[in-house]
Amino acid sequence: METVSTNRAFGGVQGVYTHASAETGTPMTFSVFVPEHAPGTKLPVLWYLSGLTCTHANVTEKGEFRRACAEHGVIFVAPDTSPRGDDVPDDEGYDFGKGAGFYVDATEEPWSANFRMRSYIETELPAVIAEHFPADMARQGITGHSMGGHGALTIALRDPSRFRSVSAFAPIVSPLNCPWGEKALTGYIGANRAAWREYDACALIEDGARLPDLLVDQGTADGFLEGQLKTHLLEEACAEAGQPATIRMQEGYDHSYYFISSFMPEHIGWHAERLK
Amino acid sequence: METVSTNRAFGGVQGVYTHASAETGTPMTFSVFVPEHAPGTKLPVLWYLSGLTCTHANVTEKGEFRRACAEHGVIFVAPDTSPRGDDVPDDEGYDFGKGAGFYVDATEEPWSANFRMRSYIETELPAVIAEHFPADMARQGITGHSMGGHGALTIALRDPSRFRSVSAFAPIVSPLNCPWGEKALTGYIGANRAAWREYDACALIEDGARLPDLLVDQGTADGFLEGQLKTHLLEEACAEAGQPATIRMQEGYDHSYYFISSFMPEHIGWHAERLK
Repeated sequence: METVSTNRAFGGVQGVYTHASAETGTPMTFSVFVPEHAPGTKLPVLWYLSGLTCTHANVTEKGEFRRACAEHGVIFVAPDTSPRGDDVPDDEGYDFGKGAGFYVDATEEPWSANFRMRSYIETELPAVIAEHFPADMARQGITGHSMGGHGALTIALRDPSRFRSVSAFAPIVSPLNCPWGEKALTGYIGANRAAWREYDACALIEDGARLPDLLVDQGTADGFLEGQLKTHLLEEACAEAGQPATIRMQEGYDHSYYFISSFMPEHIGWHAERLK
Repeated sequence: METVSTNRAFGGVQGVYTHASAETGTPMTFSVFVPEHAPGTKLPVLWYLSGLTCTHANVTEKGEFRRACAEHGVIFVAPDTSPRGDDVPDDEGYDFGKGAGFYVDATEEPWSANFRMRSYIETELPAVIAEHFPADMARQGITGHSMGGHGALTIALRDPSRFRSVSAFAPIVSPLNCPWGEKALTGYIGANRAAWREYDACALIEDGARLPDLLVDQGTADGFLEGQLKTHLLEEACAEAGQPATIRMQEGYDHSYYFISSFMPEHIGWHAERLK
């Protein structure tokens, strides 16, 4: 792992790092905020998965998470959303290929060689974090935005024992039922929709996966709400399955980091409570 | 005035606006955050002047001011740092011309036609803010970063009655005594250094200008501290003149928005106390 940059912030250190990923076959960049802490102590870890078109940088610059993470003593990890580089295949659209890994392990050519963001987030990057940072890996939480909200919910639903806390900002709740999901999963996984269910939060809940609880905030003025995000499908799936969930429609908020940053302090507080 | 964008944030509205400036002879863009407030009430206004190379956008995206402004009920105004456009003269350097107006009224050709940032900030933009926003112009504070810290200090020192509160992040404290200042003031104002004194916080204090108090934060790991910012000159000028000042050296912080955002909540609290 190499350090790209470190900046002192809110008493801690905001760093950006790069490492050679065996999963993606590319260098991968991520950011980590480590709050001030007593030497030798280990801190809980909150994962933040970003949305379409983003890198680690969007939330690092605009997410306004450091103040709350410093207050609660929580490490904040922000990975990239896909492999990068000239040799990595790409698509013309903003919603597939680079910047749009969808947190799946691709099985279709030419994507399967590099687009292994599921294994990268589930296995490879946690080992890097555990090795290089004062992280208590027994206390992990996960959140994310949009495509990253989908990533957070599905990764947690498939492995609930790994996380003590799960939340999402404006998540894609059902790739089976929206154009973004249909394009991405057809491309990465193939046309067999039964294979998509492990990458669909609603389907995972229908199929029996459970979390202790989850927190979702969704803006009512989000231009993607009706056509892509469809929060009501998650409300219905949770209600039918008896999955405890706090799903809040936030009046007048859109899909931007102005929305995310507004509710970031509450989400971090909610995670911190469960990570203590 | 035209609205470029509005986004709901922290219960209020973050807007970006543009208007035709008579002072600069160009369209000028600025951002305003208006916290949630009771209809008909007017809120105090905090001006934030940005540093070299910046537009309104840097602090709007990375300044992390909205949470504290919402908490304290303070309007936050972020102007651009210079006129813009193909017809506006420019310099090859990042530290002169566009993005580097230095908050002066230029007297030298070809700059004098457009580079009137002093009058723009002192007179023209306040009238726009008073007309279009729920702003109590009897309660104004001012702050800024680097070149904008210089702007905040000098504008306030020349007209202390306008502001109830003044602070700065890593300000250029004496353009008479640093390369950035020498280049800018020679270019905009001419070689007569006596004319520069009204654009130099230390010189203004030496010449008798006074504020009730002022707050400055400066990072010790700021790469511009020694060669450009020279905080000690302000400490010395304040000490010699009996100007009350809280000047804090912040261990390990650099010149970036990671530094600014870390101390933004405290600065806004400090202003809010004096603006109530």
